[in-house]
Amino acid sequence: MTHSQRRDRLAARLAADGLDAILVSDLVNVRYLSGFSGSNAALLVFAGDTPTVLATDSRYRTQAAHQAPDVETVIERACGRHLVGRAVADGAATIGFESHVVTVDGYDALAGALDDHPGAELVRASGTVETLREIKDAGEIALLRLACEAADAALAELVRGGGLRPGRTEREVGRQLEALMLEHGADGPSFETIVATGANSAIPHHRPTDAVLADGDFVKIDFGALVGGYHSDMTRTFVLGAAASWQLEIYELVAAAQRAGRNALDIGAELRDVDGAARQVIVDAGYGEYFGHGLGHGVGLQIHEAPGINSAAAGTLLAGSVVTVEPGVYLPDRGGVRIEDTLVVGKSPELLTRFPKELQVI
Amino acid sequence: MTHSQRRDRLAARLAADGLDAILVSDLVNVRYLSGFSGSNAALLVFAGDTPTVLATDSRYRTQAAHQAPDVETVIERACGRHLVGRAVADGAATIGFESHVVTVDGYDALAGALDDHPGAELVRASGTVETLREIKDAGEIALLRLACEAADAALAELVRGGGLRPGRTEREVGRQLEALMLEHGADGPSFETIVATGANSAIPHHRPTDAVLADGDFVKIDFGALVGGYHSDMTRTFVLGAAASWQLEIYELVAAAQRAGRNALDIGAELRDVDGAARQVIVDAGYGEYFGHGLGHGVGLQIHEAPGINSAAAGTLLAGSVVTVEPGVYLPDRGGVRIEDTLVVGKSPELLTRFPKELQVI
Repeated sequence: MTHSQRRDRLAARLAADGLDAILVSDLVNVRYLSGFSGSNAALLVFAGDTPTVLATDSRYRTQAAHQAPDVETVIERACGRHLVGRAVADGAATIGFESHVVTVDGYDALAGALDDHPGAELVRASGTVETLREIKDAGEIALLRLACEAADAALAELVRGGGLRPGRTEREVGRQLEALMLEHGADGPSFETIVATGANSAIPHHRPTDAVLADGDFVKIDFGALVGGYHSDMTRTFVLGAAASWQLEIYELVAAAQRAGRNALDIGAELRDVDGAARQVIVDAGYGEYFGHGLGHGVGLQIHEAPGINSAAAGTLLAGSVVTVEPGVYLPDRGGVRIEDTLVVGKSPELLTRFPKELQVI
Repeated sequence: MTHSQRRDRLAARLAADGLDAILVSDLVNVRYLSGFSGSNAALLVFAGDTPTVLATDSRYRTQAAHQAPDVETVIERACGRHLVGRAVADGAATIGFESHVVTVDGYDALAGALDDHPGAELVRASGTVETLREIKDAGEIALLRLACEAADAALAELVRGGGLRPGRTEREVGRQLEALMLEHGADGPSFETIVATGANSAIPHHRPTDAVLADGDFVKIDFGALVGGYHSDMTRTFVLGAAASWQLEIYELVAAAQRAGRNALDIGAELRDVDGAARQVIVDAGYGEYFGHGLGHGVGLQIHEAPGINSAAAGTLLAGSVVTVEPGVYLPDRGGVRIEDTLVVGKSPELLTRFPKELQVI
C-alpha cells in the first residue's frame, strides 16, 4: 500500500468520525502516513479532497523532499501550531488532534492558533491512526519478515560459533548478538537486547550485566532486529551444561503454553481468550503466580503497538495484524523461561521467527 | 552526587517554587533522580521530609529493588495517577506536574485522582528537573568521558583499518563503526549513526544508504556512543582521494567557525553569543545561508538536552554543563562539512571528543 493509499483510508475514517481534518503529531504515525522519518514533524490530513501538508524544520528540507515527494512540505519549526492555522485557513472547523500524544503545554500552543477563529475547535482523536496501523499491508509484512530473518540468522550464528559458553558475560553475548544482526542486514537492534543468565533469567526485563554464564544456567535472550523501521521480537531460553529436572519441567510447561497461545491465534478471537489459552496451561500446572505479564503485543513501526494481548484486553484479533506470543515462568532467585515468537494473523498464522524452540542444552 | 543528593536539590527547588511535591513523569528525569531505568514509572518527590516514592509495574519489581534501593517502590500500572493520590494522602495540596511531558489524556487521569480532594491542585512545573540536569556532576562527566572515548577509539580504528575506502557503502561504514563502538566499551550507539558521502554530505541529517563512497567525496560521519545511559556526540568530515579547492575552502571555514565557537564557551556567556561567535565566521565568508541549524546543544542522559545553543536561545552558559559545538556548511547537491565536538564548560572548556580535526584526505 502506498502512503497515499494509507492517507485515503484515514480520510474515510475522519469523515465517518465527523472530523474535517486531523493533526497527526505522533512521529511514527507521520512516518506511516507520509514516509517521512525526521525527528520534528507533523502532518495535516483532511477528510475531503484538500491535499495533505507535512511540516518540519529546515534540517529536514532535503530529507522530506526525498521521503515524502507526494505531499506539500512547509518548513516551520512550530509544526503543529502552524498546521492548525493552515487547517482553519483551508476551511476545517472540527480538527482532530492526538490527545494521547500532545502534551498539556503542546495543546496550549495548538489552541493558540484558533484564537481568532471562534467557529473552529480541536477535538480529541486518540488512537485513530494506530487503529489503521494494526492491520499490516504487504510491504510492512515484507519488512517484518526481513527483520525476523536477520534476528534468526544472528542467533543461529551466535550459537553455532560457541557464543553461549560458560565464562562469557551477559554483556559480551548481547554485544556480539547485536553485531551479528548488523552483519545479517539489520539497521540496528529493535530494542535493548536482554541477555539474562542464571538467577537473572527470573527477571522478566533484565539488562545485560557483567554476570558470567555458568554451567547449569538458564540463559534467556530476548532481542530483535530493526529493518526499514520495522521491529522483530523473539525470545529463546537455553540451558548450559545439563538441564536439571526443575528446568526441564518449566521449559516444557512454557513451551506447551506457547503452543496453546499460537494455536489460539484465530481471526476474530477475543484478545483476552488468546491470553487465557496460554495462561490456563501455566495456571493448571500451579505456576500461575510466576507468569506476571501479558501474553503478547502487536509489533510494527514500534516494538509495542496495538493490539495488546492480555487478560484485560478488549477487542478481537484482526487478519493481517502481527503479534508476539510470549508466555514465561519466572522463579525468583532460581531462574526463568520465556519463549516468544512473532506471527502474522491469518487463516493460519504465519511464523516469522523460525529459530527452533526445542530446548537446546549447550 | 548520589540520587538522594539530587532529590535534595530538587526538594529545595520545590520549596522555593511554592510546591508541596512534584510528580516526575519523564522517564529520563525518573532515572536521573532515582537510578531506575524501566519503561513505565513515575516518581513523587516532596518539598519537605516526606520520603520519595517510586511507582512502576510488576515487570520491574526486581529491577527497581536493585536500581533504586533507597526509595519506597509501589507496584501499580497507572503510576502517575496512583502517586497523585499518594501525594494528597501525605498532605500535599500544591502538586507540580510536568506539563511538557504529560499528555492531554494523561492529565485527565491525574486530575481524576483529585476528584475527592477539592483543596488540592495540579500546577504546571515544566523543565524543573531538566534545569537541575543541565549542570553535570562528577559521576555524570566520568560517564560522558567514557562515551566519548569509545567513539574516538572506534573512529580511529575504522580509519586505520581502511574502513573509509571507495567502493564501500554508507551503510557498511555505519554498521562497522557501530560494531567498533561496542568493542570499545559502548552499550550501543547514542543515536542512529550518520554516514553521508558525496552530495549526501550536504544533507545535515542523512541516514546511511547503499550509496557508494567514491574518490573526491566528502564523507561526513556524525555518531556517538552510549555508556551507562550517557550519550556522546561527534562529527568528523573526511575527503577521499584528493581534496578540491572548494572542499578545502569550506573545510577550513567550518574549522575556523568551530574554533571560534569553542573559544566562546565561557562560563556566563550568553548562549546566543556563543552561537553568534561561530556563525559570524561563516556569514563573513558569504556562506551564512548554508548553515541552517543551531551551533550546539547539551548532552547527557539524552542526546539533545538543555541548553540549546542557537540564535534564539535565552540564558547563559553554566559551569559544569556539557555541550556540543557543531557548525556546518552544506552546499546543496555538492557536499557539506560539519565538525562537532563535545565539551565540558569550565574555567577552560574540557574537550571530550579528541579525534583530530585537521582535514584528513584518505
